[in-house]
Amino acid sequence: MKIGFIGLGIMGSAMAANLLRAGFDLTVWNRSTDSSNLLAGLGATVAASPRAVAERTDFVIAMMADPEAVKAVRSGSDGIIAGLSKGKGLIDMSTVSVEISMESARLAHETGALFLEAPVAGSRKPAEDASLTIMVAGDRPLYDSVLPLLGKMGKKILYLGATGNATRMKLANNLVMAGMLTALCEGMALASQSGLDTAQLLEVLDSGAVSNPMFRLKGPQIAANSEFPAAFPLKHMQKDLRLALRLAEDVGQPLFAASVVNELFKAALAENLGDLDFSAVSRVIRK
Amino acid sequence: MKIGFIGLGIMGSAMAANLLRAGFDLTVWNRSTDSSNLLAGLGATVAASPRAVAERTDFVIAMMADPEAVKAVRSGSDGIIAGLSKGKGLIDMSTVSVEISMESARLAHETGALFLEAPVAGSRKPAEDASLTIMVAGDRPLYDSVLPLLGKMGKKILYLGATGNATRMKLANNLVMAGMLTALCEGMALASQSGLDTAQLLEVLDSGAVSNPMFRLKGPQIAANSEFPAAFPLKHMQKDLRLALRLAEDVGQPLFAASVVNELFKAALAENLGDLDFSAVSRVIRK
Amino acid sequence: MKIGFIGLGIMGSAMAANLLRAGFDLTVWNRSTDSSNLLAGLGATVAASPRAVAERTDFVIAMMADPEAVKAVRSGSDGIIAGLSKGKGLIDMSTVSVEISMESARLAHETGALFLEAPVAGSRKPAEDASLTIMVAGDRPLYDSVLPLLGKMGKKILYLGATGNATRMKLANNLVMAGMLTALCEGMALASQSGLDTAQLLEVLDSGAVSNPMFRLKGPQIAANSEFPAAFPLKHMQKDLRLALRLAEDVGQPLFAASVVNELFKAALAENLGDLDFSAVSRVIRK
Amino acid sequence: MKIGFIGLGIMGSAMAANLLRAGFDLTVWNRSTDSSNLLAGLGATVAASPRAVAERTDFVIAMMADPEAVKAVRSGSDGIIAGLSKGKGLIDMSTVSVEISMESARLAHETGALFLEAPVAGSRKPAEDASLTIMVAGDRPLYDSVLPLLGKMGKKILYLGATGNATRMKLANNLVMAGMLTALCEGMALASQSGLDTAQLLEVLDSGAVSNPMFRLKGPQIAANSEFPAAFPLKHMQKDLRLALRLAEDVGQPLFAASVVNELFKAALAENLGDLDFSAVSRVIRK
Repeated sequence: MKIGFIGLGIMGSAMAANLLRAGFDLTVWNRSTDSSNLLAGLGATVAASPRAVAERTDFVIAMMADPEAVKAVRSGSDGIIAGLSKGKGLIDMSTVSVEISMESARLAHETGALFLEAPVAGSRKPAEDASLTIMVAGDRPLYDSVLPLLGKMGKKILYLGATGNATRMKLANNLVMAGMLTALCEGMALASQSGLDTAQLLEVLDSGAVSNPMFRLKGPQIAANSEFPAAFPLKHMQKDLRLALRLAEDVGQPLFAASVVNELFKAALAENLGDLDFSAVSRVIRK
Repeated sequence: MKIGFIGLGIMGSAMAANLLRAGFDLTVWNRSTDSSNLLAGLGATVAASPRAVAERTDFVIAMMADPEAVKAVRSGSDGIIAGLSKGKGLIDMSTVSVEISMESARLAHETGALFLEAPVAGSRKPAEDASLTIMVAGDRPLYDSVLPLLGKMGKKILYLGATGNATRMKLANNLVMAGMLTALCEGMALASQSGLDTAQLLEVLDSGAVSNPMFRLKGPQIAANSEFPAAFPLKHMQKDLRLALRLAEDVGQPLFAASVVNELFKAALAENLGDLDFSAVSRVIRK
Repeated sequence: MKIGFIGLGIMGSAMAANLLRAGFDLTVWNRSTDSSNLLAGLGATVAASPRAVAERTDFVIAMMADPEAVKAVRSGSDGIIAGLSKGKGLIDMSTVSVEISMESARLAHETGALFLEAPVAGSRKPAEDASLTIMVAGDRPLYDSVLPLLGKMGKKILYLGATGNATRMKLANNLVMAGMLTALCEGMALASQSGLDTAQLLEVLDSGAVSNPMFRLKGPQIAANSEFPAAFPLKHMQKDLRLALRLAEDVGQPLFAASVVNELFKAALAENLGDLDFSAVSRVIRK
Repeated sequence: MKIGFIGLGIMGSAMAANLLRAGFDLTVWNRSTDSSNLLAGLGATVAASPRAVAERTDFVIAMMADPEAVKAVRSGSDGIIAGLSKGKGLIDMSTVSVEISMESARLAHETGALFLEAPVAGSRKPAEDASLTIMVAGDRPLYDSVLPLLGKMGKKILYLGATGNATRMKLANNLVMAGMLTALCEGMALASQSGLDTAQLLEVLDSGAVSNPMFRLKGPQIAANSEFPAAFPLKHMQKDLRLALRLAEDVGQPLFAASVVNELFKAALAENLGDLDFSAVSRVIRK
């Protein structure tokens, strides 16, 4: 079973490295060759184009930063689609939109190949630890074939049905995450303005039913109003909120709290905080 | 060290029972005598009035359902204050307002006694397991004296400074809790309307950085739109949100998301959901 | 018919002057004597205390800046109440709370006098032009007696029933006004950020069904981000929003949009804009 | 000067009739022929297709119900574009999106013709009275040529610059309108729940600085919870809010209040109120 991996950013590199460690025969491609060379050092073969990756392998994984990058590696004479054919499979683990996934599915199917969208929850650390959550939707036979492969990158893998569902699930997940983070920021701002010690609020929160790893990680950063190194950039979270709210409009679901959370993230973007971690939304929440 | 315990509801009974189990000499009083008799069966002495409890003991704990009940047992010729004197201490573990705590402190001080406000986070189960979080504020010497006592009822005990701070901390805590629960409800409503399986959303949430006991407990109840047995009644949560927003006004802290969360809880009250668990707010969120 | 007038600020001075112009026998009192002297120049008698005003006149009008000022002139041995007796009437035209009006009614009734609360809508200009809207609630017989008097200060006078209703009506009126102003500010901010001319937006708005004097007055000030001279101070509008939201909580009415409008006004207060006109909320709305 | 008119719904019929009354030589087309026959009775020539209209006239006005209808009459061998050529002009008075206007401009320019987008503010009555507000953007020379024509349909005509600006202006206008209407509904709901007479609130509002025709028209309908005949359907207002919020996202402008107003309109859609007048949003606001 030959595996292709396209897109070797922070996440992709860690995920590809885990596949190499698990013994898979890996062919990689990346826009900048630095990352490719790094993976080559771990045993990967470097191909000359996304098309070449697809031609030489059974299953191609794409892990791109954004929808534009997905489109760029997908199309054209050097693109992935040009290298696909019957019996192969494309697994897009990037976070894109339902529309782009549907289009990828259509393009893959036209070559006879199968398709899965498989966005992940989790950032750098879980990618390195192979403890990502992987939401998968699309062609079930391809899912059954690559499940062992996915198991080397994530610890929780869910099959969610037709193409589009994995993207929708990821949006719902991120909506909850943004709402929780905002609730934390507002609680900390209230505590701080009321003369309380936010570290003690974090202790109280962590001692009860709402105790969770995100609060333990982000809480002290928010309290310190630190540099907010971008584990998950604020601009990406705002994009996901926007897409979640559009999905909500499409399905007729009012989301009062989330719409206000989105405005807070927009206000943070307007303050040029988009490249910081999404917890930097605290800067527009605190007085 | 003789201990008094006034207010034997669901929480108070469990907490008093833990004190008896730990070997404390306990004198109790409750408006209805059923609960008193139950505690008597476990070794407690039953007194004829709140005043009698205060007269016979060194430290009196009050655990009342609401501010009105606190005022009722505090004042009058049969009230706790009438039985206090120098050397004694009053510990109010009810959730009240800053104003009522300040008044209790003043009334206790006028008798020469000391005062602590000590509201708890956690409901029936943690009360039974002695795993409550106890937020304490007021007279530090009294805190030092009763810390061993508090340790038999809670596992996390924080001293927060001057009277009022424990109430404020509890409000900040509940604000975060309400925001998180609302985020969960909105995420589940979006998932459900989008044709996704909310059980799978709960799995995704539980597999990542936002995993927390409250989602594990309430999520399936929300998915089932169940009876919502009131671990923490919705009307009490709305009251806490109202008080938190007033505190925010007093200290000049805007809270955009929390103000909308409060309106959702108000909408739930208007639908007569006040006596259900606060997670019943899901009924006004789902389309 | 002898009339007393207490409180000669911007509004009160203009209203009292209109009564003098209409030929009423007027006795006045004001904390600072400058304003009293001005009215004396127009024919008013100046009394030594609020009590003296009440003793010498049939009907006493109070027009104070805030609830604290009402309490100050109402109580004590020199206060209005001390000068009231059967056959007299107190008309409080200040904007206060339902509680303070109820208390004023009780205190007046104990002397045998009657009471009306009669807050006004409109600021300096309508006060000068005798074109205020006057919302009246309380003792109907007193209303019938003083209607001709009120007609010299306002052009629209409504009797609303029991004491408290006029305050509630004013809160509902100001809630609508704040919501409209916020809608204008958001529309102008969107237009401006989109490269449109906000003066043209104001023209469009003024040419259609939403055309109103407030937009014509405030719109250009908002566009110019001017000094915002306080026709109606922002801090007073925020106070009214707070009271309106509390009333809404008391009567079980969710107000999603108004709760967010209130947070915008709170954010403006936090930016020290409280003493500017309430249209200065535009400064926290524009990016 | 020969004029074409395509789209004879409620608005278009009234506007076309005004052009006939003003003596213009008018050729019309409509999907259903009933409306065409009506206009023929007033002196219009009926053409067989949108293309035929464009071929026989100098300037073609389109007034379609929605973007899909615009696309339908624009394209294809029978469409307007197929009948355009150098020297002619297309004026689209429908409310569409910036994208569709840009595309119409491009398509018209490719034939050598000029283009204007010219959405209107106002509904049936102002259309009949020729008192619409017309927001115009696009090719200035065409604007100068057709200004006399536009003046027979509207009383306020603004030229706003490049194509897209008229659509943006209309979105800003409708955002303000929706915010105002929501403020009115919330104020009326508060008054009603507080035991006040909403008719008196409407009197108060109409007597002061916020007095406006929309409140006079819609207020009594809202008070009566009437049938809400659709002068402007709620679903169209929600669509405009959605587009306005997307524009706000594009230009980086947070809109806290409008985002919540949009959720209220979405909630109304979810209650199947979309075909009623947009003031029917009151049904989801009142308790």
